[in-house]
Amino acid sequence: QKAGQLFSGLLAMNVVFLGSAFISSMIFNHVAITLADVWILLSILKVLCLCWIIYYLLGTSRQPHAVLYRDSHAGPIWIRGSVLLFGSFSILLNMFQIGYSVILIHCKSMVEIVFPSIEILFICTQAFFLWHHSKDCIQVQHNFTRCGLMLTIATNLLLWLLAVTNDTIHMEIESQLREVEQRFAGKAPFSHPYLRNETTSCTCPNTTICKVFQKGYILLYPFNTEYCLVCCSVLYVIWKNVGRRISHHHVPHIKPKFKLQGVVFGPLLGTTAVIIGICIFMMYQIQATGSAPNHQVFVMYYSYYIVLLPLMSVGAVIGTIIHALEKRELDTLKNPTRSLDVILLMGAALGQIGMSYFSIVAIVATDPRDLLNSLILSYSVLLIFQNITQNVFIIDGLHRQPFVAAAEARHTGHAGQHAVASELPAEEETTTSSKQEHTQISPGKEEEMKEEQNHEAYNQRRVSMLELGQEIRKASLSYLHSYSHLSWKRRALREISFFLVLCNIILWVMPTFGAHPVFENGLEKSFYGYSTWFAIVNFGLPLGVFYRMHSVGGLLEVYITA
Amino acid sequence: QKAGQLFSGLLAMNVVFLGSAFISSMIFNHVAITLADVWILLSILKVLCLCWIIYYLLGTSRQPHAVLYRDSHAGPIWIRGSVLLFGSFSILLNMFQIGYSVILIHCKSMVEIVFPSIEILFICTQAFFLWHHSKDCIQVQHNFTRCGLMLTIATNLLLWLLAVTNDTIHMEIESQLREVEQRFAGKAPFSHPYLRNETTSCTCPNTTICKVFQKGYILLYPFNTEYCLVCCSVLYVIWKNVGRRISHHHVPHIKPKFKLQGVVFGPLLGTTAVIIGICIFMMYQIQATGSAPNHQVFVMYYSYYIVLLPLMSVGAVIGTIIHALEKRELDTLKNPTRSLDVILLMGAALGQIGMSYFSIVAIVATDPRDLLNSLILSYSVLLIFQNITQNVFIIDGLHRQPFVAAAEARHTGHAGQHAVASELPAEEETTTSSKQEHTQISPGKEEEMKEEQNHEAYNQRRVSMLELGQEIRKASLSYLHSYSHLSWKRRALREISFFLVLCNIILWVMPTFGAHPVFENGLEKSFYGYSTWFAIVNFGLPLGVFYRMHSVGGLLEVYITA
Repeated sequence: QKAGQLFSGLLAMNVVFLGSAFISSMIFNHVAITLADVWILLSILKVLCLCWIIYYLLGTSRQPHAVLYRDSHAGPIWIRGSVLLFGSFSILLNMFQIGYSVILIHCKSMVEIVFPSIEILFICTQAFFLWHHSKDCIQVQHNFTRCGLMLTIATNLLLWLLAVTNDTIHMEIESQLREVEQRFAGKAPFSHPYLRNETTSCTCPNTTICKVFQKGYILLYPFNTEYCLVCCSVLYVIWKNVGRRISHHHVPHIKPKFKLQGVVFGPLLGTTAVIIGICIFMMYQIQATGSAPNHQVFVMYYSYYIVLLPLMSVGAVIGTIIHALEKRELDTLKNPTRSLDVILLMGAALGQIGMSYFSIVAIVATDPRDLLNSLILSYSVLLIFQNITQNVFIIDGLHRQPFVAAAEARHTGHAGQHAVASELPAEEETTTSSKQEHTQISPGKEEEMKEEQNHEAYNQRRVSMLELGQEIRKASLSYLHSYSHLSWKRRALREISFFLVLCNIILWVMPTFGAHPVFENGLEKSFYGYSTWFAIVNFGLPLGVFYRMHSVGGLLEVYITA
Repeated sequence: QKAGQLFSGLLAMNVVFLGSAFISSMIFNHVAITLADVWILLSILKVLCLCWIIYYLLGTSRQPHAVLYRDSHAGPIWIRGSVLLFGSFSILLNMFQIGYSVILIHCKSMVEIVFPSIEILFICTQAFFLWHHSKDCIQVQHNFTRCGLMLTIATNLLLWLLAVTNDTIHMEIESQLREVEQRFAGKAPFSHPYLRNETTSCTCPNTTICKVFQKGYILLYPFNTEYCLVCCSVLYVIWKNVGRRISHHHVPHIKPKFKLQGVVFGPLLGTTAVIIGICIFMMYQIQATGSAPNHQVFVMYYSYYIVLLPLMSVGAVIGTIIHALEKRELDTLKNPTRSLDVILLMGAALGQIGMSYFSIVAIVATDPRDLLNSLILSYSVLLIFQNITQNVFIIDGLHRQPFVAAAEARHTGHAGQHAVASELPAEEETTTSSKQEHTQISPGKEEEMKEEQNHEAYNQRRVSMLELGQEIRKASLSYLHSYSHLSWKRRALREISFFLVLCNIILWVMPTFGAHPVFENGLEKSFYGYSTWFAIVNFGLPLGVFYRMHSVGGLLEVYITA
């Protein structure tokens, strides 16, 4: 098994290195290696992946005994949902690209229509594959499957790399374009090597459809990067699960469902944060992209963060303390999905934290007493703190046994129940055991209540209706008592995680749709020099966006299992 | 335990990020952050580490029950030896630096004497600590010890980062200096921001001692980088071992000793390779650093590699096949040292492989049919192949049970022995079991022979001398027969690993002492642009050197246990 993993890992490593070398060559030497060369390489890889995926769908997975086990932790609904969501956005993006190329067909080559078509095919097939097979623990053709998966991971990573470099180059061009336009007041149109074709002969004709294509293309770009990263993480989990045998002892839990009951302050505070955030985001976008960006808009933007981030940090710290107070048992079973979640959270946070440290050093070295600079400084410090506390909170939450608290409540409930219903000791014993089994499976409080009632009714048909009614009432009372006793911790956890979910969503939306103050405020840019800061942002920003998205997923899981 | 690891890991991450931001600021903005600022930060970190190490040596480790277990795999002699070796070179380096600063005291500040002194103190204390405590599994003050270890790791990483950037900047300056000198024929002395002080007023007076200091400083620099990396790896193993309890079932094996017997071709071929390599290295150094480097010296250098690398790859592949044929049991016990070795091997190889891929793309895109270019192309491809095959061979070898082959030989020997000495069945049984225990511990063939003789003599004192002599002779004969039958595989493994050890030593020596053809041939430099290729080499070269050193260690282990 180790040999197969090593071999497929080496394959992926080589593909990734070759592709990165290609992409870097394209960036640093536009003449020798063009974007078309990179696209040809990526298309070959995509076609290979497509062949493997189709072979897997039609061949490998239909063999007898191919999928004996399914990993219940792998591919939760929010991950598969985001694959579908981002996948459809990516398809839309490619369609816009095809449409744009068709309009400007007189100065574009055929490849700019062919490659997006391959991309669409690839995205569709991959999304279908991930939707249906993300839980598989495949038991046949181990090594071939591993290699196929690793090839697909490598292709997605390269697509991500290309998208990131392209995306940020795009961003950069736009911001420079604006600067140049300001300076020359529209006299000399800026021509970058990448844009030269378009600006000289291939400008978009002034039709609505072309503008829509162009604008949609720019807006949808970030979703493509997210799509690649999410696919990589799902594929990695499948790869880890190849050949894994799950003992039948761990029956797949019926996952607790997402319910809104019992939380008030979290959604309220969170929604307020989201609404204010959207307002600030829109003001920022109008101000920063319109004329010369003035200080005021940055002050507003950073102030919003400086208010929001401490709230989030405090919430995460309180949540961690409650976790420690609860003393639930830790879930130490092997679980590739969770290990990956933890690694991704920590790894993706590095991007944001690294950028913050660079900002801190730049500000401290220049002038930390200026208003805007002191705002950026506190923003950076708070961001580091928030990232760390939130990571600790989520990792803590993911490692808890989800159902022990519920079972505990049941036990306390039973103690009261025993005192009341001591007249049927023998039957009560069997009921207890069967009920405990149930508690392990269905943790929803209301469902439990109902089931308890059903159960007791079924077991005590001989007992007279009066006794039964009395007993149920007393049992429910003692149950409710223990529930309300335990639930302040659980309720607080739910409030906190719901609040954090909403905050992370707004912090995810803002950079995704184009608010990049780290680039636009110009402070670090002038300190580190243009190209260095560009490289740092290039590395940090997409990871930061991915971090927000991933922590939304993690926090939802904490919310559900709390 | 997990919480402590997470917390100390976060501490280290923050320190590393802060330090990297400082160092990058120094590189990209010389005015705001100077080298002195970075030195101050690092000195503070060093003093903190020193305090912790001294507290550990005098406090923590002397507490009752502090060190109940020792990890026999951690800190093998070659690692601790290289810590001492590189440590002493680093101390020498710092002494040279102090001496150099004292000579030029009129234009250098006091800090340039103070900081190297702190560094010397730090290196000495750390080397002492690692020499004596690298096997510790500390059982008290877990979290404090973890934080201390992580702080020390972070400090070493930052020292490495500073050394790497400084080292490569130095290299770069030298090569540019040469270019400039050639162009202006000594008219205008080149003044780099870093060297400006020295070149304007602080030139070295023409005394021998100053030249020695200057030259020794340049020569010893690479050892400092290696020292930091080796310390990091040892500290990491100690960190992983904090709080670990080793079941007393696994008694520490008496490690097999390094012996040269039974290998002929490996040392012979290897020594030839080393001697030729040294000749080529010296010719290269004379030619490349003297006047304008001509093509011939590069052709010679790359030809040497192109002959050597396939030999090494074939050796590693044959070794891997023999490993597969042997069907020894795999050693699947938890072993942090080995996991780290595997990760370091794979990680360090990435540097070399990445650089090779960049070379390949650059050559294929320019002109692969030129003689030198085709040589570099095949060199790069072969280097990737060699790295991968060697990694597979070493990892395979590290995961074998070292003593099973020896035990097998004993069993075959016993079969013959039983047929001869069937007159003492009861005593033979007890002897067998006690001997099997022995085989598990001492695998050296000659020692076994001697012990066997001792043992049998002790157990069979009643038996007449005639019978004894006869039996010993027959047993030895059958033993020798089985030994010679098994040993072709083991001998081949030893030949191969010895050959690879010598090859890796020469491939380690050449870049360490200044042969950097990837930088000096100018091909990739002109393709990617100066600064990009500079960054790539910056990342790849030190990792490549570390990889060679680390694989020497791994191969020695494979040799010993084969």
